[in-house]
Amino acid sequence: MVVLGSTGSIGVNTLEIAKRFGLKIEALVAGNNYKLLNRQIEIFKPRFVGVKDKKTAEKVNFDKVYVGTEGIVEILNRSKSKLVVNALVGEAGLIPTVTAQNLGKKIALANKESLVIAGKFIDTSKITPIDSEHFGLWYLLGNKKNFNRLFITASGGALRDWPVEKIKNAKLEDVLKHPNWSMGVKITIDSATMVNKLFELLEAKWLFDTSDIDAFIETKSIIHALVEWNDGSTTAHISKTDMKLPIAFALLGETKEKILEPVNLLEIGSLEFKKIDPKRYPVWEIKESLLKNPDMGIVINTANEEAIRKFLDKKIGFLDISRQILEAFKEFEGVKINDLDEIFEVKKEVLRFLNGI
Amino acid sequence: MVVLGSTGSIGVNTLEIAKRFGLKIEALVAGNNYKLLNRQIEIFKPRFVGVKDKKTAEKVNFDKVYVGTEGIVEILNRSKSKLVVNALVGEAGLIPTVTAQNLGKKIALANKESLVIAGKFIDTSKITPIDSEHFGLWYLLGNKKNFNRLFITASGGALRDWPVEKIKNAKLEDVLKHPNWSMGVKITIDSATMVNKLFELLEAKWLFDTSDIDAFIETKSIIHALVEWNDGSTTAHISKTDMKLPIAFALLGETKEKILEPVNLLEIGSLEFKKIDPKRYPVWEIKESLLKNPDMGIVINTANEEAIRKFLDKKIGFLDISRQILEAFKEFEGVKINDLDEIFEVKKEVLRFLNGI
Repeated sequence: MVVLGSTGSIGVNTLEIAKRFGLKIEALVAGNNYKLLNRQIEIFKPRFVGVKDKKTAEKVNFDKVYVGTEGIVEILNRSKSKLVVNALVGEAGLIPTVTAQNLGKKIALANKESLVIAGKFIDTSKITPIDSEHFGLWYLLGNKKNFNRLFITASGGALRDWPVEKIKNAKLEDVLKHPNWSMGVKITIDSATMVNKLFELLEAKWLFDTSDIDAFIETKSIIHALVEWNDGSTTAHISKTDMKLPIAFALLGETKEKILEPVNLLEIGSLEFKKIDPKRYPVWEIKESLLKNPDMGIVINTANEEAIRKFLDKKIGFLDISRQILEAFKEFEGVKINDLDEIFEVKKEVLRFLNGI
Repeated sequence: MVVLGSTGSIGVNTLEIAKRFGLKIEALVAGNNYKLLNRQIEIFKPRFVGVKDKKTAEKVNFDKVYVGTEGIVEILNRSKSKLVVNALVGEAGLIPTVTAQNLGKKIALANKESLVIAGKFIDTSKITPIDSEHFGLWYLLGNKKNFNRLFITASGGALRDWPVEKIKNAKLEDVLKHPNWSMGVKITIDSATMVNKLFELLEAKWLFDTSDIDAFIETKSIIHALVEWNDGSTTAHISKTDMKLPIAFALLGETKEKILEPVNLLEIGSLEFKKIDPKRYPVWEIKESLLKNPDMGIVINTANEEAIRKFLDKKIGFLDISRQILEAFKEFEGVKINDLDEIFEVKKEVLRFLNGI
């Protein structure tokens, strides 16, 4: 298989599962972490290697190192693998997803932005999501279609228990204190603003072909997904939060072997369910409009990435991230995307709007 | 279909579902509630009618009224229905279950005692359980066998929150205050002693061919069953507690129509999971031994029915019910049942032991 994003947390877990089940690694693509990449090359002996930029490429112990998105596209074209694990971060994951699909490859997709900004141009029947929530839905649904509504859960992020009126004062270090686990910086911020869950609803829309999907907070993050069936039953997917479970299914199709220790509900003791309140998570206001017009995905993603950049630079406050997303949403409401190129045009317009030029 | 126990709560719900889906009722069998039976006869116009005793039979507006277990056997022999709903209470349900099976009929089984005392003589492949817990397991399992362990939940009964040292003083009226719903007297007592859950574990053993089954308390009774899968996932069945759901599936095979309103977890707000503590529920001590030697089912059932009779007559205290079950269990531990007749022989011996004769 081809592993895009091999040195991140999903990539590392992917290689662990690949090793356990004896799966061949044809290509490894990383960002800047050449030290870990060099170790991975020694162990997995790939045919192709790629990194983000030329400077990093020089530090990689491999004959020919491909560079950037162009390099990934070339690796995909040359590779014989039928499976691509796309664990790239951000919008950079889109072109590799589209390229792999055009080559008829299956994709194990951890890159959220591919579906968020271009879901309508992607054949989701050839995609397996690497993500606890969508994996949970897939696990519960099987081939059945007789559901009434789908639910995914949210942890609520680092500011979940803060008094609403104090949230405007949240500093970066507060936002990064995720209650249930540690992840990359961007996704931890997206978790605190609830943008992450908004994106997951949009992904679920494309993956399961429905707009009857909602989310709520389950504070311990052991229930990941629920299906409300037509008959009145609800089923829930419960597991420890460890990406090895969705990764194993994405790589193997299905597995009946033990991947994780099961959750012990008696140790957990209790669970709590809470509404996602737009007073605490202002972006939640646009949930319904977004699901009705998913073309708005690029608008929200651009506004979010730009606002996070400014927040990290300490140029704006935490609540300004949500405010800028809502402003951009209002400005571009009703936008229609007709092809992949238009995504990048809209992106430019959104950036111009946000930066007042 | 044939409905045994038509005037009880399961029977009434069965007829409601039958009416909604236009299913024909060939026979109605009730206990002593001739008034309701007469109304049911008017509405459903069955070919056969049966009641518990001759005195009741005289008050039934029907040409020929069959009486007792013999009457049920005759009705089953004469009926053309392929489905029998057995909602009889207690050991009286066993002979009808066995008779219906010998006639090749399918059984929708609400009578617990059939499996508890004679599970090894019953072909469970032709039985659909009418019971939230076993229905939940069936719903979650589908045709899959790759589970590690099954769980059912218990409400904990009326004395769940009593200080353990006060339980010995519990009066009948205390025991009948079930926290989550109202049911018949016997099952409400069985719920307070946890005998009901012990029986359900034994039923699950026969229905799903496993001894890897356990129970815990979920105080709100909205999660009914859980399956722990080999891969480390757990799935849960959640619904309002309304027997129409398992009944509809038992009568129709499967239904994609709405039977109940779904549970709203945000309204529920929180869930709590507790161990079943043998200090509070002394019969829980024998759970493992019982699952290892299910032939002991008749011993426990007999001791339980006899002790409940004495408790209702105010001859023994609440904790004496559990004590007598444990004494009988100790006395008869290791008993082997080789055929149906031996069940009734062991029953007589247990009664002699309990009454010191």
